[in-house]
Amino acid sequence: MAQLTGREMNRETAGKRNIRLVVEYDGSAYHGFQIQVGQNTAQSELESALSVILKERVKVYGAGRTDAGVHATGQVVNFHTDSSIDLQRLRRALNGVLPDDISVLHAKTEDPSFHARYSARSREYTYRISDRAARPAVHRFWIHHVRARLDAELMRTACATLVGQRDFAAFGCGLRPDENTIRTVMRAECRREGDLVEVVLEADGFLPQMVRSIVGTLIQVGIGKTSLTQFANIVDSCDRKAAGSTAPARGLCLTRVTY
Amino acid sequence: MAQLTGREMNRETAGKRNIRLVVEYDGSAYHGFQIQVGQNTAQSELESALSVILKERVKVYGAGRTDAGVHATGQVVNFHTDSSIDLQRLRRALNGVLPDDISVLHAKTEDPSFHARYSARSREYTYRISDRAARPAVHRFWIHHVRARLDAELMRTACATLVGQRDFAAFGCGLRPDENTIRTVMRAECRREGDLVEVVLEADGFLPQMVRSIVGTLIQVGIGKTSLTQFANIVDSCDRKAAGSTAPARGLCLTRVTY
Repeated sequence: MAQLTGREMNRETAGKRNIRLVVEYDGSAYHGFQIQVGQNTAQSELESALSVILKERVKVYGAGRTDAGVHATGQVVNFHTDSSIDLQRLRRALNGVLPDDISVLHAKTEDPSFHARYSARSREYTYRISDRAARPAVHRFWIHHVRARLDAELMRTACATLVGQRDFAAFGCGLRPDENTIRTVMRAECRREGDLVEVVLEADGFLPQMVRSIVGTLIQVGIGKTSLTQFANIVDSCDRKAAGSTAPARGLCLTRVTY
Repeated sequence: MAQLTGREMNRETAGKRNIRLVVEYDGSAYHGFQIQVGQNTAQSELESALSVILKERVKVYGAGRTDAGVHATGQVVNFHTDSSIDLQRLRRALNGVLPDDISVLHAKTEDPSFHARYSARSREYTYRISDRAARPAVHRFWIHHVRARLDAELMRTACATLVGQRDFAAFGCGLRPDENTIRTVMRAECRREGDLVEVVLEADGFLPQMVRSIVGTLIQVGIGKTSLTQFANIVDSCDRKAAGSTAPARGLCLTRVTY
């Protein structure tokens, strides 16, 4: 997505309504949120549906660039429009036009300055892991299955080392050499419910594949292959090669964006 | 499924191990549990997988004949085999051969007389309904969506009228004229968690589409179209035409079988 400068943005949006949507999607069939030429993405589906309903070309801005196969129950987007359509009607019309795997949960009018991505104070991602003996069948698209039993208490303790402002280069993938890898993690939790282990991370922003790299490394802690000291050292190393493998997309969900 | 007489069964199974499996499946792609010519069913998938692994023809008996599109997290089946295969190995081998939407959770050896269907004391079904404004995207295959807000407390009170031994003809579909429609409902509960309303029914047995007919009628109670008195009258009427429509298969899951 070519970024608009502040001036271009103002020229394009002056006098228009700025509308914010909360969107849920099953990412299984999508090549992520953000538009890519020749790929099916949640953003392109939203823009098409809005253009059909509003009869104008609509550009959508998303809070989180979820990867291919990653889900969302709390993605936030905004767009500008000349239309005066009632927002309840818009939401219903969108859910009539959008495919089954995307649903608009809420629609509201925002200040002209609101931007789903740049105004966000934090994003919350939830990663779901099943460690029962048998692979999941019913919820197989939303859960990553590991064969070994996880020590969720150890993982919870490891999570605590992530909280705060620090350099997360150890968990970033495909970074530019000059990329700023400092992020602030506000919350890092791990809890077990039966055979399901959930990792919840909230930060001001995430590096590409950061949640999945952290979860991959936490799983190593959970199965006893990485000690808590080693985990802390990996975080401090700022070296991606030190960390564990990237956990699969299907377990990950963007659950909330805070403004 | 042509029923075997007791004598035929004994002749076929004498000296064999009788193995019980707990099976989970996503029913979306299946024409129900029970084998039907030319249709994809969970039973046919299980029999094929067992025959491949055990290198003998295997006949599977299931506790509940779930309809097309209905899910299970606690279906119980049994089969007889000459094989002495270790049961952990069998479970793992099955989950290697079975399609992604079927998973075997447990395997154990049973008494020769155990029969998944005839030995069952009760079956528990759970029906999930979402009544939020927007249709579900992420869990759309496991939840029935209704547009009107449901009064789950009223539905809970209506459920109480179902408990006990009674004639459930009002909720049976495609019954034979001479069919015994007396069943004992041990438990009928309704609870809300956020936007999700769950109905749980446990009975010694269910008539065809009984749970979905009951839920369809409970939804009428929940949206205020059917009063509690009318609901009680429908139960007493033994008349299918008095009840509400059959709720869709996707919301229904066989969650437990008790022996």
